[in-house]
Amino acid sequence: MAVPEKPVLYSFFRSSCSWRVRIALALKEIDYDTFPISLIKDGGQQFTKEFQALSPMSQVPALKIDGITLTQSLAIIEYLEETRPTPVRLLPQDPKKRASVRLISDLIASGIQPLQNLSVLKKVGQEAQLTWAQEVISSGFEALEHILQSTAGKYCVGNEISMADLCLVPQVANAQKFKVDLSPYPIINRINKTLLAMEAFQVSHPSRQPDTPPELRA
Amino acid sequence: MAVPEKPVLYSFFRSSCSWRVRIALALKEIDYDTFPISLIKDGGQQFTKEFQALSPMSQVPALKIDGITLTQSLAIIEYLEETRPTPVRLLPQDPKKRASVRLISDLIASGIQPLQNLSVLKKVGQEAQLTWAQEVISSGFEALEHILQSTAGKYCVGNEISMADLCLVPQVANAQKFKVDLSPYPIINRINKTLLAMEAFQVSHPSRQPDTPPELRA
Repeated sequence: MAVPEKPVLYSFFRSSCSWRVRIALALKEIDYDTFPISLIKDGGQQFTKEFQALSPMSQVPALKIDGITLTQSLAIIEYLEETRPTPVRLLPQDPKKRASVRLISDLIASGIQPLQNLSVLKKVGQEAQLTWAQEVISSGFEALEHILQSTAGKYCVGNEISMADLCLVPQVANAQKFKVDLSPYPIINRINKTLLAMEAFQVSHPSRQPDTPPELRA
Repeated sequence: MAVPEKPVLYSFFRSSCSWRVRIALALKEIDYDTFPISLIKDGGQQFTKEFQALSPMSQVPALKIDGITLTQSLAIIEYLEETRPTPVRLLPQDPKKRASVRLISDLIASGIQPLQNLSVLKKVGQEAQLTWAQEVISSGFEALEHILQSTAGKYCVGNEISMADLCLVPQVANAQKFKVDLSPYPIINRINKTLLAMEAFQVSHPSRQPDTPPELRA
């Protein structure tokens, strides 16, 4: 019988979407190799022919696993959940709670992150980009804080960790990068702190990746 | 026993995300009422307090169903799939194919649509918005066409309709609205035509909604 190949994650240390998947891999205790794709060096290594063949949108992350290559962080996480439900489930069993998890995940993954990622901010231009990113994140967080008032327990949805939490922490890190005032969002802040104390969020952190530059290492 | 209330879809006829959910409701033969939310009238009815209480992001669609209110079109579709798997499934059984469906859906729902929606184009400004929308859609469709080369059969993933198809058709309609040249995307074009011939795509079409203005009616 063939030994299954170790999964390979094409990742950039600072990419919030890569971080989501790194947390999932850590929580599910999946051993993998990192193949760093710098979004900065060489005019962006995501634009090479080799990487575009794996990820036609020229975006990280991409995950080689089980003989296929997947892109889109939430699609990757759902695949990991369906094929490797243990040791930690990332979606609850109850369909209504699952809907809450996906709603929060999509709010971040469709409603906030894409509007403040590197390629969009380049299009917006140097002068306007900080205000643009702050506006996008603040209005998204305002909605999210409101939703969390009815869904949150210890984590985003009740007291079990879920895909929503994997989206939250990297988005808060982006908010901090853009100097967004987080004081109006006490629930987001509390959950973020709780999660950052967990091993899986620490080993996957941007400051601890193989491609983290020495000056940014934790 | 209480009779279950009829679901209510908060929808705007021209919203591509509302259309995705309308197709799902039609395919799954779920009877529902439409509550129109005009993104144009009164400075945008999505910003009223009443609607924000249902949809904190001030976005359509929202769906009241089973005693809860859901937002985010893909989260809504996944919920419908989990609670009403018949008569038509919107996700295949095989995890790898499910991943392909979600990857394509997310590519459109996170990678294209949010970057060309009304609120972003307002921020971009009158002069630049057409070029902006065309660039975003073209680069997304280039990636999508490439992916479909390996996933498509009659539909986006093989020969069974899926959530990916529900995302494709409304996005092609947006592309046409912004006068994107679709000739470089033969697979997208072919699948779009096949789908538009189906009853569920026709009854859910923007030209046939309760809030479609008379001059735009089919």
